[in-house]
Amino acid sequence: MADLAAVKRTLTEQRIETPSWAYGNSGTRFKVFTQPGVPRNPEEKIADAAAVHRFTGVAPTVALHIPWDKVDDYAALTRYAADLGVGIGAINTNVFQDDDYKLGSVTNPDPGVRRKATDHLLEAIEIMDQTGSQDLKLWFSDGINYPGQDDLRTRQDRLATALRETYDRLGPDQRILLEYKLFEPAFYATDIPDWGTSYAHCIELGERATVCIDTGHHAPGTNIEFIVAFLLRQGRLGAFDFNSRFYADDDLMVGAADPFQLFRIMYEIVRADALSPSQNIAFMLDQCHNIERKIPAIIRSVMNVQEATAKALLVDRDALFAAQRSGDVLEANAVFMDAYNTDVRPLLAEVRADAGLDPDPVAAYKRSGYDEKIIADRVGGNQAGWGA
Amino acid sequence: MADLAAVKRTLTEQRIETPSWAYGNSGTRFKVFTQPGVPRNPEEKIADAAAVHRFTGVAPTVALHIPWDKVDDYAALTRYAADLGVGIGAINTNVFQDDDYKLGSVTNPDPGVRRKATDHLLEAIEIMDQTGSQDLKLWFSDGINYPGQDDLRTRQDRLATALRETYDRLGPDQRILLEYKLFEPAFYATDIPDWGTSYAHCIELGERATVCIDTGHHAPGTNIEFIVAFLLRQGRLGAFDFNSRFYADDDLMVGAADPFQLFRIMYEIVRADALSPSQNIAFMLDQCHNIERKIPAIIRSVMNVQEATAKALLVDRDALFAAQRSGDVLEANAVFMDAYNTDVRPLLAEVRADAGLDPDPVAAYKRSGYDEKIIADRVGGNQAGWGA
Amino acid sequence: MADLAAVKRTLTEQRIETPSWAYGNSGTRFKVFTQPGVPRNPEEKIADAAAVHRFTGVAPTVALHIPWDKVDDYAALTRYAADLGVGIGAINTNVFQDDDYKLGSVTNPDPGVRRKATDHLLEAIEIMDQTGSQDLKLWFSDGINYPGQDDLRTRQDRLATALRETYDRLGPDQRILLEYKLFEPAFYATDIPDWGTSYAHCIELGERATVCIDTGHHAPGTNIEFIVAFLLRQGRLGAFDFNSRFYADDDLMVGAADPFQLFRIMYEIVRADALSPSQNIAFMLDQCHNIERKIPAIIRSVMNVQEATAKALLVDRDALFAAQRSGDVLEANAVFMDAYNTDVRPLLAEVRADAGLDPDPVAAYKRSGYDEKIIADRVGGNQAGWGA
Amino acid sequence: MADLAAVKRTLTEQRIETPSWAYGNSGTRFKVFTQPGVPRNPEEKIADAAAVHRFTGVAPTVALHIPWDKVDDYAALTRYAADLGVGIGAINTNVFQDDDYKLGSVTNPDPGVRRKATDHLLEAIEIMDQTGSQDLKLWFSDGINYPGQDDLRTRQDRLATALRETYDRLGPDQRILLEYKLFEPAFYATDIPDWGTSYAHCIELGERATVCIDTGHHAPGTNIEFIVAFLLRQGRLGAFDFNSRFYADDDLMVGAADPFQLFRIMYEIVRADALSPSQNIAFMLDQCHNIERKIPAIIRSVMNVQEATAKALLVDRDALFAAQRSGDVLEANAVFMDAYNTDVRPLLAEVRADAGLDPDPVAAYKRSGYDEKIIADRVGGNQAGWGA
Repeated sequence: MADLAAVKRTLTEQRIETPSWAYGNSGTRFKVFTQPGVPRNPEEKIADAAAVHRFTGVAPTVALHIPWDKVDDYAALTRYAADLGVGIGAINTNVFQDDDYKLGSVTNPDPGVRRKATDHLLEAIEIMDQTGSQDLKLWFSDGINYPGQDDLRTRQDRLATALRETYDRLGPDQRILLEYKLFEPAFYATDIPDWGTSYAHCIELGERATVCIDTGHHAPGTNIEFIVAFLLRQGRLGAFDFNSRFYADDDLMVGAADPFQLFRIMYEIVRADALSPSQNIAFMLDQCHNIERKIPAIIRSVMNVQEATAKALLVDRDALFAAQRSGDVLEANAVFMDAYNTDVRPLLAEVRADAGLDPDPVAAYKRSGYDEKIIADRVGGNQAGWGA
Repeated sequence: MADLAAVKRTLTEQRIETPSWAYGNSGTRFKVFTQPGVPRNPEEKIADAAAVHRFTGVAPTVALHIPWDKVDDYAALTRYAADLGVGIGAINTNVFQDDDYKLGSVTNPDPGVRRKATDHLLEAIEIMDQTGSQDLKLWFSDGINYPGQDDLRTRQDRLATALRETYDRLGPDQRILLEYKLFEPAFYATDIPDWGTSYAHCIELGERATVCIDTGHHAPGTNIEFIVAFLLRQGRLGAFDFNSRFYADDDLMVGAADPFQLFRIMYEIVRADALSPSQNIAFMLDQCHNIERKIPAIIRSVMNVQEATAKALLVDRDALFAAQRSGDVLEANAVFMDAYNTDVRPLLAEVRADAGLDPDPVAAYKRSGYDEKIIADRVGGNQAGWGA
Repeated sequence: MADLAAVKRTLTEQRIETPSWAYGNSGTRFKVFTQPGVPRNPEEKIADAAAVHRFTGVAPTVALHIPWDKVDDYAALTRYAADLGVGIGAINTNVFQDDDYKLGSVTNPDPGVRRKATDHLLEAIEIMDQTGSQDLKLWFSDGINYPGQDDLRTRQDRLATALRETYDRLGPDQRILLEYKLFEPAFYATDIPDWGTSYAHCIELGERATVCIDTGHHAPGTNIEFIVAFLLRQGRLGAFDFNSRFYADDDLMVGAADPFQLFRIMYEIVRADALSPSQNIAFMLDQCHNIERKIPAIIRSVMNVQEATAKALLVDRDALFAAQRSGDVLEANAVFMDAYNTDVRPLLAEVRADAGLDPDPVAAYKRSGYDEKIIADRVGGNQAGWGA
Repeated sequence: MADLAAVKRTLTEQRIETPSWAYGNSGTRFKVFTQPGVPRNPEEKIADAAAVHRFTGVAPTVALHIPWDKVDDYAALTRYAADLGVGIGAINTNVFQDDDYKLGSVTNPDPGVRRKATDHLLEAIEIMDQTGSQDLKLWFSDGINYPGQDDLRTRQDRLATALRETYDRLGPDQRILLEYKLFEPAFYATDIPDWGTSYAHCIELGERATVCIDTGHHAPGTNIEFIVAFLLRQGRLGAFDFNSRFYADDDLMVGAADPFQLFRIMYEIVRADALSPSQNIAFMLDQCHNIERKIPAIIRSVMNVQEATAKALLVDRDALFAAQRSGDVLEANAVFMDAYNTDVRPLLAEVRADAGLDPDPVAAYKRSGYDEKIIADRVGGNQAGWGA
């Protein structure tokens, strides 16, 4: 049996990072539906992230996206965040929204564009120096739409060159989180399409290069928890971008599409004792709340991760390992499912109450008046979105 | 052996419709890359479509999209097109870009929004009356992102109601082309996700309701040519939206991703004698040329359909049927592949030369100076895109 | 709030049919692993099905598969079953295991093979007359492996002919359950690959032809609960073949791969008041227990369906409909998830206790000695499998 | 422009290995359809492989599968093959058909089973010593069907241990070809599910461990040519198992499902100058001819690889690279497609005639009387299949 006190302690210590851009507008290629009260600048995004932390108690950092969160004074922004009770997390780079990047960024056939893109990565490290961030998140939309459009192998060479220059610029406490994605926006070949490609580059770069798993970036049928377990074994799992999907990179609330999958992922984390902050795995959300209110959606997402974690912690590992060793398929599965089928919401309510939080963060948020306030206050100006 | 003269005659008579919106800007949720020379209004889109027809000889109509192609005087627009040598094809409706449609159009929980959406469909029929169009193309982005968000069955009732009202407004020579799509922009459930749903609604509506197959709108692994053959057997195949995809609704040039699949589709058309204009199947393109020059991409797409069609026509059906009847798997496949492996480009060059066209439409377009001219002329103003 | 007494009553009345072949050996093309104690004849399969019913109380019928369950005297077999407390359910036909069926059964190019296959379907109806079965389950493995191998459209004509002859032979209380499957064993085109094809044939056949949904027979990403809701709306959902899958037709225990999906499916059933036996929807299992003990796996599967059903019944539909109507995405989803996240095992334990059953059917089965007994008794002879 | 003489020389030197088991019976879990004339022992399989080589001229080796091709005297078998004009190629291991392997082989929870499985791998190396084979092909069906059934990470440890012992036993001219597969026969998690896992193990093992790409072993949408290009860049591509698929591991004739994909794969090979035998990439077939005559199907498959190779060699790489460098998407794609659209059958007919072969290998085989002879001769005895 799992030790309940230890489970609660672990749940209290869990940390989930929210992304600044999830507080802004987002949509599909067909339409971006705007919402009232959406932030108009990095400060307002941070304020929303702080609200999420206030109600959940486990979301003390917010990831920035450059240039969407570009400011003149990052030290001041960091202090602003600290005053609201949150810290700056990973710095996310953007080499996909300039006209120059139509045919790629660091893999572009044009050396001038590659230079520009790499410079942006270096600039992000400078921002990290100012914010104290340790994580440089790299996602490249680079790829091609048509067979023959560009040379697959040469693009890998270009990619390796840019990664090397970036890696060598990292400070001793900084690291790269290298993301992969099957497709979108590239529709024939993506330059880092799968974990294997990211892993191989990380191995070549050095110890401070790690893989970032976005749970929405895989081919249909991919067993994500296998990748989690494998990368943990290899010591190369750096971060998660949590979200959920039914089809492609849908970027829905994590746990909304397949809560059992999220449980299985969290179990591999627990199994490897990788939940502890000391293990330095960044658990981040990366979602788009296209049609639902953003802040309560993020609160719900944080809670979904907590619930999956709680269930994973409740797995009776002694009983599980015993059944596994004896080859008892049904019993091993039953022990595993017993934890999944447990309703952990009362346990999490206790954890929150113990931490001085409202046991129901969504209800508390609704009662708080924060939503009404931002709708009333944030009138005029340009709402933040993927363009800024 | 196929009768070459008959093959050439059929190829000469083939008709492929191009979509006005493919001449405008398009992109992904990450970025719309603009291009110089892009049309700024419906007239310029029609001029580009006319250019495609001038060089290919088989693209005499252009589909409009309302409201992107909204004008005050559709009769004048139709005359303008006729003066350029093309006609107005299908009228495409748009009930996905107003803020009202965040939770759906004709299936929206709000009856007021449903009324508005249905009114738009009726308005499109009025435009058809003015342009002489016979085809009302209906694509609904309607769907939900989260389990429980709305009631799947009730949404079908709402959909049926709107379709009925629309159908009843059709003139005697007009028909509905009802499109289906697996996902995007809805990420959990789409209200018309597959051909079966579209077909069932068409059956209930009446004879002038037919299914439109967009070749990019299926789940991975779907055998599209089976659907083609089946709908032809049922007499309910109204139209194609041609494009190609590797992953989702990539909207690449038709034939670019899987030319063998396109051949198999065209074979089922040929097999059912459904190529003839008298059969009234609308062969339309629906593509996004996000990173390549648009007009030559559309010319290439038209040529790709022609090549697949030529190969399909070259299948030695007597030999094929004989091998099929005798259960000779390898021989039947070999007869089929023999046509596919034939290089039909010389044959099509002849067909073009016979029709007084340049045998190489892409080269002729490049030499024509049209591209340079539109880049020079179309300066200032707002480029057309999915927003307008 | 759901009425708990009504929920318990509904759960008590639920009926789940188990398949005779799931008690026999099964495997993959790579290996069939045998198990001790596996039945050697139809009687022993029925005895196992009766054991499942004894411990679960909701599995009172067993489906037969002809010729695997061929006997001389079906009336005697029916009495034998009745003596053990179970009835004979659907009759499943098999037109895929004779050498004659290499290129298809009812769609075979050879009219002699088609005749033989159709005669088998008619023979199955005769068996139904003797067993009192009302359901004729038709699954056709028919299809082709290579493009061009046979004519897609002609095969539909042949299929329609065989279905018509079979339908016309049905007695007034008998019906057809027409299954569809994306692929396997056919690898290019299957003659009934999707629900739309099955539905279209059913419509043409008449009212007593209905669609059977096997939950493992879809393309990746298919929204199965949508199909459930749609077919219920059309009045054409006849049956389920429950199982679960991660990749293809894995035939794992239902609820093992995606319990949330099973809940969503059962919700659509509950939503349409289609759970009641009077609605005549056959809830059947169709699984392969390749590596786990078969009887407890089937007991677990029955329990998984019960748990998903209980959760579906607990959905607060008044609150859900209100949230849906008001367009509150997060609240509607939350109401839905609240039921899913409930631990219904105590409720089901009560339902069982009220019915005089052990609240833990798996434990009760283990204690019963049945497993040891069949292992000891069933020595010698030929174990039943897919070959017999 | 490609140098035609060089192209022909390269095509003449191409080598494609055929698998002994493709000459025997195979099928699906539903049925193995037998064929007349199927080999009954390793010698007859080798005779069939020699026939394929006689008519194609490019299939001079045959892969063995142990224990299906177990003999007392491998030196004698090698001489027998040599007398027929062919050599012994890769040795394939089988650790999936003993009852012991129900829960895995080298990853089985039972150390005794792991020992037995590893011993089989070592035995295969002994056979290699006797046959002179250089390639040890390892495919593990190992995996689990249910979440929780066994520990994902521990299974990797067990796998690494067995691989290490096997690798250390290799002779200096021997190497491991480590295959991966998404699923089947395991239905929840496979222990080597993707190229990344295989690659990571190979890196840890040493230089003589390389990845084997089976073209049917990927998730839907996977870009296989990307993997080819990437592994070539990393120097870790050891071999191909060619076949084709529409859905899962269909094992159809290579080039039958997506000939354009095969061309793209071969282009990456050509692009990396990896076609030459000196590069030591093993191009092998791994197919199941379930319903078609086996020998002509294998001849056709060899020809399909040749045709894709010829097209890849015809790509005008100077023009392609120039278009790629200049960012001309349409031109680069057009250069690429120009080669694909070429009918290379006349060129290959010339290559064959130059080599003293019949230009049409399938027709020559049919005329040869070999098929009739094996049907007449191979009567009685047990036909070879996956069981032996």
